[in-house]
Parts: sequence; structure tokens; C-alpha cells
Amino acid sequence: MYEPFNPPTRLLLGSGPSNADPRVLRAMSAPLIGQFDPEFTRLMDRVMALSRLTFRTENRRSFPVSGSSRSGLEAVMASLIEDGNRVVVGNFGRFGDLFCEIGRRCGATVESVDVEWGRIVEPDAIRASLRRQPAKLVAIVHADTSTGILQPLEEIARVCREYDALLVVDAVLSLGGCEVSADAWGLDACVAGLQKCLGGPSGMAPLTYNERVEAALRRRRGSPRTNYLDLLQLQDYWGPDRLNHHTAPTSMVYALHEALRIVEDEGLEAGWARHRRVNDALVAGLEAMGLELFGDRRHKAPMITLVRVPANVGEAAVRRQLLDEHGIEIMAAFGPLLGSVWRIGLMGYNARPENVLRLLAALEHVLAANGFDPPPRAGVRAAAAHLEARPRELQAAPR
Amino acid sequence: MYEPFNPPTRLLLGSGPSNADPRVLRAMSAPLIGQFDPEFTRLMDRVMALSRLTFRTENRRSFPVSGSSRSGLEAVMASLIEDGNRVVVGNFGRFGDLFCEIGRRCGATVESVDVEWGRIVEPDAIRASLRRQPAKLVAIVHADTSTGILQPLEEIARVCREYDALLVVDAVLSLGGCEVSADAWGLDACVAGLQKCLGGPSGMAPLTYNERVEAALRRRRGSPRTNYLDLLQLQDYWGPDRLNHHTAPTSMVYALHEALRIVEDEGLEAGWARHRRVNDALVAGLEAMGLELFGDRRHKAPMITLVRVPANVGEAAVRRQLLDEHGIEIMAAFGPLLGSVWRIGLMGYNARPENVLRLLAALEHVLAANGFDPPPRAGVRAAAAHLEARPRELQAAPR
Repeated sequence: MYEPFNPPTRLLLGSGPSNADPRVLRAMSAPLIGQFDPEFTRLMDRVMALSRLTFRTENRRSFPVSGSSRSGLEAVMASLIEDGNRVVVGNFGRFGDLFCEIGRRCGATVESVDVEWGRIVEPDAIRASLRRQPAKLVAIVHADTSTGILQPLEEIARVCREYDALLVVDAVLSLGGCEVSADAWGLDACVAGLQKCLGGPSGMAPLTYNERVEAALRRRRGSPRTNYLDLLQLQDYWGPDRLNHHTAPTSMVYALHEALRIVEDEGLEAGWARHRRVNDALVAGLEAMGLELFGDRRHKAPMITLVRVPANVGEAAVRRQLLDEHGIEIMAAFGPLLGSVWRIGLMGYNARPENVLRLLAALEHVLAANGFDPPPRAGVRAAAAHLEARPRELQAAPR
Repeated sequence: MYEPFNPPTRLLLGSGPSNADPRVLRAMSAPLIGQFDPEFTRLMDRVMALSRLTFRTENRRSFPVSGSSRSGLEAVMASLIEDGNRVVVGNFGRFGDLFCEIGRRCGATVESVDVEWGRIVEPDAIRASLRRQPAKLVAIVHADTSTGILQPLEEIARVCREYDALLVVDAVLSLGGCEVSADAWGLDACVAGLQKCLGGPSGMAPLTYNERVEAALRRRRGSPRTNYLDLLQLQDYWGPDRLNHHTAPTSMVYALHEALRIVEDEGLEAGWARHRRVNDALVAGLEAMGLELFGDRRHKAPMITLVRVPANVGEAAVRRQLLDEHGIEIMAAFGPLLGSVWRIGLMGYNARPENVLRLLAALEHVLAANGFDPPPRAGVRAAAAHLEARPRELQAAPR
């Protein structure tokens, strides 16, 4: 007799997955239908329409890849890159490294334009690389969980047009949590995930790409090195012809539809304001506790906060106690920041005032038990003051 | 205001997806936990243990790929194949063609050992190919939905050992519906899907591979052309080191665990017997109605049945009426069989006596309305007689 798995209830305030909206979880328990059922075709059309609204694009090609976020990134890279193509990566964190690795595995010659973690990539650095040598594409992350930085994209998009390179953007963390305007900003391809600011579980990668990308896909010589992630095949399945490809993950398509529907129902701008408001309140609370943030504050991402571990405090011990005693997950950092920084995310369904206060209250107790003594109740008080100071119309919880 | 999607209730008796067990659907609505939560680690260990039981293997490497079945097939092929490797495909249907395509895209020189649809591949044909020229691997489908044929594997596995080729098996349709004994049969790598006889939704590809495969993965020069589907990276995530890779699709891991748990709880052999019994009853019913089966009966797969469309009956009209009036989905055929054959699956949770009777009753009415006049009530009567004739201990519905 094998026991069912009954997961504990956690508040997921790390870098993702975040807790899914209960409506999204419920949507997944609906009965399956066939992938060529007329009702499934209707669902696919709605998913594509909602994807366009969320990416703020008119792109015909706006559909999900059936896998985690990086499957969508790899689909774009593998479908575009031909052996020997030059790819420039604007690299300001771990997911820039991932772009480099994917690019190389797809056969590209990759130049990584690196900046120190905690900073943005300057458009001039991309321009200098493209001026030196043309590139098929430039890949860059919009908001990177490893550094908590939000990278401005408009000027880089202009540079890419100027040098006739395609711009591929990883908006996995940002979509739904702050502005991502694919058309207005000139992003050629843009990939997201479901498990961060969209409030669903990991496992689908909504993406969009424009006609410049589609033309490049059609121009390539020979097939990509993948069948599962070949965008030309996928767009024929997610297009009027509905050509057979893999069996769509029915329940995950339900989840994606429900997540996008909830985002659009709240209103994109209202959702961005909500993320900004609760994350600002968190920052106010952390600073009132005497903690210090990591990274360039002018470019802090409004859904994740990197905070330095105080001297003589055990990084892992604090996380463990938060999880074991308070049921709250925050994250360790990667690479150069490992051991010296915590990462705290307030994303999607979790970007709510009560989660800020709950975390700060718990963190005060746990820090005090681990050798750091914050001013009593200062964190919660500062966060609450920030939340109350904001216009009334922004204080509503998400519907 | 965007409306929630409320799927209609269908009985899915096509080639998959099949209806998921309601327990699997419920398991997906459990709250998310983080992928490095100690409880998630416990879940991953249980998924691997249950995978080993289901594939009947001791392989250390038994874990799922985060995508539809073909993502698992591509993970194995892309991770093993180096440019110019020779691959032999035993090809008796559409999913043999898929193996050929994936192999070529991964850089292999592929020889497709073709047989007419409806027949099995003879081991001697594989032997002749390997004798002519060695191959890195032989890929073959165990049961192919396009032809309804179940391919014997033991002798082919012996041939592969003899010529030192790895044997890669697509058990997407068969796992859970009939015997798949990875170790006893000598299958080096074996890939399945969740949406057929395992009774879950599409979107996870459980697989297993042995030390011969792992050694070949470690021996290859250079990285595979993929990051998302790189088995060496995936096995480090699904191994004791838990190295970070993509964010696991939490809800789908819940679904996979629950589906495998249910299979093991019923008992593998009991599940195979149930599939055999209801599918035999279906065959008895279809034949009593005067319909004719497609393919070599000695090698009919015990979870899908291909039946010829009678002369002057509209293939699509019958399917449409079954769906619209009776809520039952059966499938059209592919390629050479398109228009002349229906495909009827009784898989996983749907492999139950009442579904046989419900389909036959509906089909009798729909055929009669479309120009074919079966003997009244003969189909249901024959199927019911078959079901009653079987030993009592096999008549229990799945728990």
C-alpha cells in the first residue's frame, strides 16, 4: 500500500515557484478533453488571445511551450540558431549564464557581455559588441532572480534593430509583475513562465515572437536540432491548421488559461501596482529592521528582494528555522552571493500585504534567535505604515 | 471579464489522452511546495521508487522528464547521439517515423527498418541491419497507437546485446497496460507517458535507463545539443546531489506520483489483466456487430483496437456523432489508414467494463444512422458475455 502524498502548506516567498492562486489549482482538476476536441480548440484560441494581452503584443505567434520556462527559452534559441551563428548575451546574472549555455549547445558562437552582479547591462556595451561584429541575435534577461535586478530593454531593443539583430528576452520573472510591452519596446521574442508573477505552477512556458523571428525561422537552412522544441512545428499546432505534434499537457493548459484569465481580470496595470506596493513595503520593513539590500537600487526588480545576511548570522539556519517553525520558504543565493544573501519573492498570488507582515514578523523572531537583534517590531511597523500610506484604490487584495 | 473554461465531460476512448483517474486530478490541486523543500525531496524519492516498480527495473536512473512523452524520447536520443552515429529504427508505424525524425535532428545517420503497417518488426531484420554495419543504438516502439500493434522486444534486445547496440524503447502506450519488464527483457532505456495506461494527464515522461546507457552518456565527446533535455544534468537533479536545473513542474510531479501509486496499489499484473479483459470484450463486441479489425491479430496491443470503417460509412461523420450526441471520443487514423480505420482505446482509468458497453451501445446507434446496420444488440451482448465468462477475481473494477 503506497500512501498518497500530502504536501505541507508552505508560504513560498523564494525565487519561485510561488504559491499558485487556488483558482488555478482548482482549474487543473477539471476533466480532460481530447486535444482535437472542438472545445479544446476554443481553449487554445483563448489562451493565445490572453497571451497577447499579457505580453502586450499583436503577434500572431503567442502560445506556450509544453515545459518549464527554460524549455521556452531553448525553443526560441534552438529554432533560431544555426551552427556558427554569433549570439550576444547581455549577462548580469545566472540566467544570462543559462542563455550562454543554451546558445553554445545550439551551435552558436556566444559572446557574453558581462557586468558585475547587482548592476544592469548598459546598451552601449551591446552596441559595442554588435558594432565589432554582427550577430544573429541578442539574448537578455528582463529580471533575474539571482541578482534581483530589472534590466531596462527599450534602448537595447533599438540597438538591436539598428544592427539588425533579433532581441530574445527572458521575461520569466517579470511577466505579470511589472510592465512587459513586447510591441512598444520592440522585443522580437519574449518567453515567460507560469510559476512566478502569473500565479500558477511551473510547467508551461508562454512565449510570443514577431514576424521578424518567424521570417528568420523560415529562412534557416536545415531543421533545428530538436523536434520537441521546434517553433515552426509548434506554431503549426498552435495555428489554424492544428497540425499534430506532441500531446498537449491538458491540465497545464487549463492552468495557464486560468492564470492568464486572472491576470487580465485584475487588470495588468493594477497587478503591476500591487507588486510594486507590497515589495516596497517589504523593503521598508527590512530596512527598518536594520538589514541591507543587495544591488543597484535604481534597478531593483519589483517582485524579488535580495537582502544581505548580517555578519555572524547563519544563512542556512535562518532559512531552515523560517521553514520549520513558520512554514515560510525564502531562498539562498547563487554563485558569488551564496551564503551572503537571501532572496525574498513576493510574486503573483503571494504579492499580498498580509504576506509581507507575516514574513517580517517571523523573520524578526528568527533573526533574534540567530544572533541579530532587530529593533523590536520595527519591521512590521514600517511595512504597515508603507501599506497604509498608499492610495486607497491600490489597497484592495487581488480579486 | 474573461470567463473560466469549463470543459465538457467526455469519455476519451481514442489514442490518448485518456480520462485521468479522478484521484490524479485531485492530487494536482494540492498546494505547491518548493523544489528544494525536504518534503519535495521525499516526493522525488517516492516517484523514483514507484517508477522502478512500474518499469520492473533496478535501474538507479528512473525519473521523469518535464514534458510530454516525446520530450522523454528526445532526451534519450539527444543525450546519446553524437553527430554521425548510426541509429537503426525498427519502424512499424507513425511513432517509428518519429524516432527517425528525432534521430536525424540529433545528428544521426538513421536506417529505418520498415514493415507494412499492421505487422511487427522481425528480429532478423534488425540483426541483418546491425550485421551490415554497427549502430550506436536501436530504437523501437513497444506498442504503436497508429497501428494497434504490440511489438515483442525480448529477442530484439538479445540481438542488440549481441551487436553491442543500445536498445531504446518507446513504451508510452504500453506502460501500465501490459507487461513492460525493462530488466528481464534487457531494455537499455525505456520511456513512457502519463496520459495513456497510467491514468494521468499528458505532461510528464517517466523514463528509466541502465548503466550501459549511463556509461555511454559519460563517454560522449562534447555536450548534447540541448540543456533542457540533457539526461546527465537531469539525473544530477533527480539524484542525491539535487543539483539545480529547471524548476520542476510541481503539480505534474504530484500527478505522476499519484498515478504510479494507483498502478502499484492495484498491482501491475492485475492492471494488465484488466486491460486485456476489457479490450478483448470490446473486440468480441465489434466483431459481433460485423466489424472487421485491422492488423495482425497475434500481435494486437491490449489497450487499443483498430477497426475498419465499413464501406459507404462516413468515417468522420460517425466520430462527430459519437462525440456530439454521446460524449464519446474515438480517433481517426494516421497516414495510410486515414479515413479507413477508427482507433478505439481502453486505457488506464478508462479500461473498465461499463465503458465497453457504453461505447458499443452508442456505436450501434450511430452506425445505424450512418448506413451500416449491425445485428440489433449483438455487440453489447457479446461483450457482456465475454466479461461474464472471465474468472470472478478479474471482474473487480480498479480500486
